[in-house]
Amino acid sequence: MPDASLLNAIRSIVGDKGMLTDPGDTAPYSEDWRRLYHGRTAAVIRPGSTEELAAVVKLCAETGTPVVPQGGNTSMVGGAVPAEDGSELILSTARLNRIRDLDTADMTLTIEAGVTLKAAQMAAAEAGCLLPLSISSEGTAQIGGVLAVNAGGNNTVRYGNARDLVLGLEVVLPDGTTWNGLRRLRKDNTGYCLRQLFVGAEGTLGIITAAVLKLAPQPQEVAVALCGVPSVQAALALFTRFQAHDAASISAFELMSGQGMSFVLRHIPGAVLPLESAAPFYVLVELATPRPEAGLRAMLETILETALGDDTILDAAIAESDAQRAAIWKLREEHSEAQKREGASVKNDVSVPVSKVPAFIEKATAACEKLLPGVRVVPFGHMGDGNIHFNLEQPEGSDAAWFLAQDHAIMDAVNEVVREFDGSFSAEHGVGKLKPYMMPDWRGGAELALMQRIKAAIDPRGIMNPGKVLP
Amino acid sequence: MPDASLLNAIRSIVGDKGMLTDPGDTAPYSEDWRRLYHGRTAAVIRPGSTEELAAVVKLCAETGTPVVPQGGNTSMVGGAVPAEDGSELILSTARLNRIRDLDTADMTLTIEAGVTLKAAQMAAAEAGCLLPLSISSEGTAQIGGVLAVNAGGNNTVRYGNARDLVLGLEVVLPDGTTWNGLRRLRKDNTGYCLRQLFVGAEGTLGIITAAVLKLAPQPQEVAVALCGVPSVQAALALFTRFQAHDAASISAFELMSGQGMSFVLRHIPGAVLPLESAAPFYVLVELATPRPEAGLRAMLETILETALGDDTILDAAIAESDAQRAAIWKLREEHSEAQKREGASVKNDVSVPVSKVPAFIEKATAACEKLLPGVRVVPFGHMGDGNIHFNLEQPEGSDAAWFLAQDHAIMDAVNEVVREFDGSFSAEHGVGKLKPYMMPDWRGGAELALMQRIKAAIDPRGIMNPGKVLP
Repeated sequence: MPDASLLNAIRSIVGDKGMLTDPGDTAPYSEDWRRLYHGRTAAVIRPGSTEELAAVVKLCAETGTPVVPQGGNTSMVGGAVPAEDGSELILSTARLNRIRDLDTADMTLTIEAGVTLKAAQMAAAEAGCLLPLSISSEGTAQIGGVLAVNAGGNNTVRYGNARDLVLGLEVVLPDGTTWNGLRRLRKDNTGYCLRQLFVGAEGTLGIITAAVLKLAPQPQEVAVALCGVPSVQAALALFTRFQAHDAASISAFELMSGQGMSFVLRHIPGAVLPLESAAPFYVLVELATPRPEAGLRAMLETILETALGDDTILDAAIAESDAQRAAIWKLREEHSEAQKREGASVKNDVSVPVSKVPAFIEKATAACEKLLPGVRVVPFGHMGDGNIHFNLEQPEGSDAAWFLAQDHAIMDAVNEVVREFDGSFSAEHGVGKLKPYMMPDWRGGAELALMQRIKAAIDPRGIMNPGKVLP
Repeated sequence: MPDASLLNAIRSIVGDKGMLTDPGDTAPYSEDWRRLYHGRTAAVIRPGSTEELAAVVKLCAETGTPVVPQGGNTSMVGGAVPAEDGSELILSTARLNRIRDLDTADMTLTIEAGVTLKAAQMAAAEAGCLLPLSISSEGTAQIGGVLAVNAGGNNTVRYGNARDLVLGLEVVLPDGTTWNGLRRLRKDNTGYCLRQLFVGAEGTLGIITAAVLKLAPQPQEVAVALCGVPSVQAALALFTRFQAHDAASISAFELMSGQGMSFVLRHIPGAVLPLESAAPFYVLVELATPRPEAGLRAMLETILETALGDDTILDAAIAESDAQRAAIWKLREEHSEAQKREGASVKNDVSVPVSKVPAFIEKATAACEKLLPGVRVVPFGHMGDGNIHFNLEQPEGSDAAWFLAQDHAIMDAVNEVVREFDGSFSAEHGVGKLKPYMMPDWRGGAELALMQRIKAAIDPRGIMNPGKVLP
């Protein structure tokens, strides 16, 4: 338990406004966004600079005090909550919120960990550039956390995950030293690629305090369509067609089920299906390019006409205005909310190779329906990168608590199919506190042993975000 | 020194054709391509499978015998040569040369380490795809080595380095266990990103035996131009213009100096400048896209006309045929050969942020000319990613041996300027045996300490490619 003398020493570093110690003040930070975990902490430390943060970590290292790095605290897997016993201090990056540099010739943004993803996107846009990363929690999620969990989102089909945007990092290590790796080089082969070790480590190897991110040119033309498709196989065929045609313009390729769409249309005010009739599955495709006079709208129309002609799609609506574009995106974005309103649901954030998405959905659906007759299967997500949110809604008229008690059985049934296709049990949400128990089974043997050796080498006292990622 | 009983045990694993022990046979493997190092080895082991390779490494681990992983042995920095004392065994991946899988829906290629880059490119092309990595040594360089050194080349401006193409790896670790990380997932957040640790580690952490690589759609249209430009600053302005217009179609943006071009025109048979007159600098720009009817030729013309109009370029020639395209590329590709024929040269493979290339070339030129009056500065390379081969040719009429003896002074002078712009002393060639001594100065402190801790954790006995990368 952090004692008073440690807290006083920390206060002398970060000042009063850098420290919350009232249990009422710290409570919101001790609980995760999904309310899966209710931890406790003696203090939330909010350093005002990398130097302050490093000095605090040094004190914690010396006293063996565990710390939990926290950004916007929007983890889906409890990745930023402290233990229940109050032994861990929360180290918030919220006040490290300066944009240090933006270079339009280099197309780079040098930014501190506490800037929200939304603010970072806006800074890029003001300079005529695109920070090509977009996730639902972007208004709250901070860059440090976004990188620590290697966030994904809608645009990875075109731009990759957060990992792919990182040129350089500044990291405070578990012993309180700072690694300044804020280089903005496109080529640099001088030893081990440390930055990619910290990206995705979920704060268990150190605290990311700043980063250099790659920017892309701002799209000048965007075209969006919603298509009804007869099957997931048809959705894949459509994707392959767009990819062969102009892969570089596909900025999103999202799949939805007829079931999920019916929940959205039922529960979300103003949601309207812009098609003649309902379909077994839907695809939202967004094309975007910085090329002037690219004729994306015409290209979209041509491909969709061909697809209509050979029954790859059943129907399509192309957005004719910003408002229509937003209305189509809303149908996709409100999926989680609509599911919540419909009743209890169990979520699986999984991935398989893109080519295996149809077979995966078919088999996983059959497995879940066999396990729980009447369960409503609501797969949706990022088909273009193989990441499916394979969610399940309670059978109509069933008891919510009973259904939720089946969550492990459901996850196991889904994961068994994921494994068959060499997929992943956590595509974009990470491991956090929710899934370390799955690591030995999925990543055991040489892989987990390597991870544990690396953890022990970099954080020998185990003070950095304990209980996360590794079992 | 490996003793007879170890060699016999290895022979019983790999068989006679998996082992070269005659000093005459092993000699070509013991020397590097540039002939900077002349090592010795008791045997070159050529396992026929990952299992055989793992079994050999296990024996070496048990006996504390150091091994040098070797692919095509085309390292520019002696990264694959054994020590002079004969204590190290060479472990060649040459017989791990199968293409395991190619999936055009996933756009992935699963391939063993010993396949040459050229053979891998051809396999992709046969399936209508592009493996977007191209380097001068691609006919000999093997995939394992290409990944171990994170190769760069001409197309990184569009597709990134080798690192950016890797989805999965299979690696034999220093204790002889095998990590099968051959996943082909676009999203997978389940623990530390081990694959990026092995990519660029130059064989010091383990031996890459197979990989899953991302493919891209095959370009359908290619347009190439050579431009004379008044300055490097103008070349940068031209690059920025192309980037803003259609970044996704720039597949190469190469800079050459008037000096370097004059050497090519003087020494390379058939080399012809397709412009009215010589210029201070030249740019080779290549646009490529899989889009049908993309009109790249017209776009190139429009941008170059504007650039002519405002004096960003002095002159330009657009290739009108495959033959003309090849002729323009030849002017770039023969730079090294032409320099060799002109006389002795000292090479620097450095990088700076793209925006700093003009200032870097100006300052580094001044520094070298001050150091060695009459020296001929021949910068060329990948302007689009900030990687300049800042080479220097002996002063006319000077003694070659005397000039070559100045190599460290020259490298130091260049690197001082590189450092001023937060650049890298090795952009794409790696560290190898040539540059570990530079690591403390450039990557010292927290960064090198981290690398050393990782090395010790993964290869505690230090048997994996000793003396490379780390000092």
